[in-house]
Amino acid sequence: MEAARLEIRIDAAGNLIGRREGTDRKLPTIVVGSHTDSVPHGGNYDGDVGVMGAIEVAQQLRDAHVRLRHSLEIVDFTDEEGGLVGSRAMAGELSAATLDLVNASDRSVRDGIRALGGNPDDIAHARRNTGDFAAYLELHIEQGGTLERTRTNIGVVEGIVGIHWWEATVTGVANHAGTTPMDQRHDALLAASELVLAVNTAAAGLPGRQVATVGRIRAEPGAPNVIPGKAVLSVEVRDLDAARIAAVFEQIQAHAAEIARVRGTTIEFRDLEATAVPALTDPRIQRIIADEAHGLRLTTMAMPSGAGHDAQDMARIAPIGMIFVPSAGGVSHSPHEYTAPADIANGVNVLMRAVVAIDAGELKGASR
Amino acid sequence: MEAARLEIRIDAAGNLIGRREGTDRKLPTIVVGSHTDSVPHGGNYDGDVGVMGAIEVAQQLRDAHVRLRHSLEIVDFTDEEGGLVGSRAMAGELSAATLDLVNASDRSVRDGIRALGGNPDDIAHARRNTGDFAAYLELHIEQGGTLERTRTNIGVVEGIVGIHWWEATVTGVANHAGTTPMDQRHDALLAASELVLAVNTAAAGLPGRQVATVGRIRAEPGAPNVIPGKAVLSVEVRDLDAARIAAVFEQIQAHAAEIARVRGTTIEFRDLEATAVPALTDPRIQRIIADEAHGLRLTTMAMPSGAGHDAQDMARIAPIGMIFVPSAGGVSHSPHEYTAPADIANGVNVLMRAVVAIDAGELKGASR
Repeated sequence: MEAARLEIRIDAAGNLIGRREGTDRKLPTIVVGSHTDSVPHGGNYDGDVGVMGAIEVAQQLRDAHVRLRHSLEIVDFTDEEGGLVGSRAMAGELSAATLDLVNASDRSVRDGIRALGGNPDDIAHARRNTGDFAAYLELHIEQGGTLERTRTNIGVVEGIVGIHWWEATVTGVANHAGTTPMDQRHDALLAASELVLAVNTAAAGLPGRQVATVGRIRAEPGAPNVIPGKAVLSVEVRDLDAARIAAVFEQIQAHAAEIARVRGTTIEFRDLEATAVPALTDPRIQRIIADEAHGLRLTTMAMPSGAGHDAQDMARIAPIGMIFVPSAGGVSHSPHEYTAPADIANGVNVLMRAVVAIDAGELKGASR
Repeated sequence: MEAARLEIRIDAAGNLIGRREGTDRKLPTIVVGSHTDSVPHGGNYDGDVGVMGAIEVAQQLRDAHVRLRHSLEIVDFTDEEGGLVGSRAMAGELSAATLDLVNASDRSVRDGIRALGGNPDDIAHARRNTGDFAAYLELHIEQGGTLERTRTNIGVVEGIVGIHWWEATVTGVANHAGTTPMDQRHDALLAASELVLAVNTAAAGLPGRQVATVGRIRAEPGAPNVIPGKAVLSVEVRDLDAARIAAVFEQIQAHAAEIARVRGTTIEFRDLEATAVPALTDPRIQRIIADEAHGLRLTTMAMPSGAGHDAQDMARIAPIGMIFVPSAGGVSHSPHEYTAPADIANGVNVLMRAVVAIDAGELKGASR
């Protein structure tokens, strides 16, 4: 950011912000951002590509002596992986409870923000308002294998999926695995196994790109010689459309009722309320991204983002757009994460052109 | 035992033995036994019914001034629930490794035997040889619900099932639950769930009374938002016939190969070698038990014992027989364990008559 001669500041949430002033101070700011933090044992591309790409855009504008009408801000958001901390603060959605969370480092989020140069006691000052930003753009690796598999250069993100979590509890009757005949069992794990398959079918059986996953399961008492009397499992459903998430869950519930009846168990779902609502990207920005990519003779594909991004918080206060570049083997959150330099260059070129197009007024007003 | 005027001793394994001398010292001993230890949070009937019933037989013989030709020994075996310790020692099958096992009490089996008055350093002296016993009889609660459900008074046990344990490991590919489309997954838990159902089908789908159970399951990494890359589960198969156990496992393996192929995972089985071989009861003793029960106008049913018993070790050195009485609701290893006094009395009466019949020479020699 220093090399690109940006005005650098750190806001109250610890977000690192580099600004390049525009020619018309009355216009709202165009923001381009991502994050540089990582998960433990993560890779070098998730987030970093977006921040480095944004700085490259600013650097290119400077090298070409181009002054935009809109001011441009590059944001490296605080603690994306730990819960979108910086972008939530900027959208005015960060709770005091989150600030007091203590993570594996034995430090609170509050301590971390202070260490980054922020001021957690004045977190409200990090807030930006609707109308402040003309648009928010983010370049990111796909973290899935669709672009690579279909040999597509650029993913035009339609939105960031909503995520809904439930905990399902199957209750049967624990009993002796030796003395209880097969036809006299109320095996909770047997019913839970059918539920795992039903969760899969509910998502895979409908048209669309919704996904549903059981990632965690526990059988009780958990001894090889005892028929499980209880099984507890996680159920996660993601989609761009909250109504579709609800429809998938409705189907899961219907399957569960039938499984419970046949197996002589009960199945109960607890809504974990750890829910992210879907965040749609602006259709005009989608079109700009696709057009600029095609202008560079790059192939594009419209796709949802199955993972969460800072952009989903920015969607609360601005029209957003996201550009995906291919992830080798679809691998992410791993040291094996990789995106080829040529693919990153493609993404940065599209990002650059999109910024210029938005600056030229192609959004025709900043509100959605 | 004192009230029944038995000669009481404690053998090297801590087994409590009460003896009533017979008239013909050349004849082998008739042994009747069970155990009085319990599982944590267990009930008051498992084992106790057999020991108290055996003492009642001795008491009745004394009260009626009946002298049997064979000597009679009543055995309260050491630590049945912890691994058939006393009966294994008596059959010469207790390993030094078992003596050194430390359980939840923080004491070793060796310490426990010493506390009971045994001499673990001289455990070989607890051993009895083939030919020492004319027969071994055991009265026990069923621990299942078949007798109650079919309104049968007496279960004539055909044998104690063999038990075979495997650990199955399903290996898929762990991946992001948001960015990996449904048709691009190698979900280890999905394959494991199909395996749980296949284990059930393999046992329930064949004629016979074999049982198969998955009691334990673990998915890794075990986060709601990660597609499991690995799942580990226990597989247990029990039957009276070792060949049938092998046949059920063969079917499970065939199912597993197909599941692995379709789901794009691998499935591997590790033989845990925690295997009990089936122990059959003597058909002549089965007939004696059934005949004596019918003589008392009691209904009988031939059935396997799905649970392990001291009798299975005694089968290594003597012809054995077991008498089951109904368990209310099939509940065992629980404070709710219950058998009605009238049902216990039926069992003790059959036990008494079987002892007298065997003493009268109905086995026509003590070997099988």
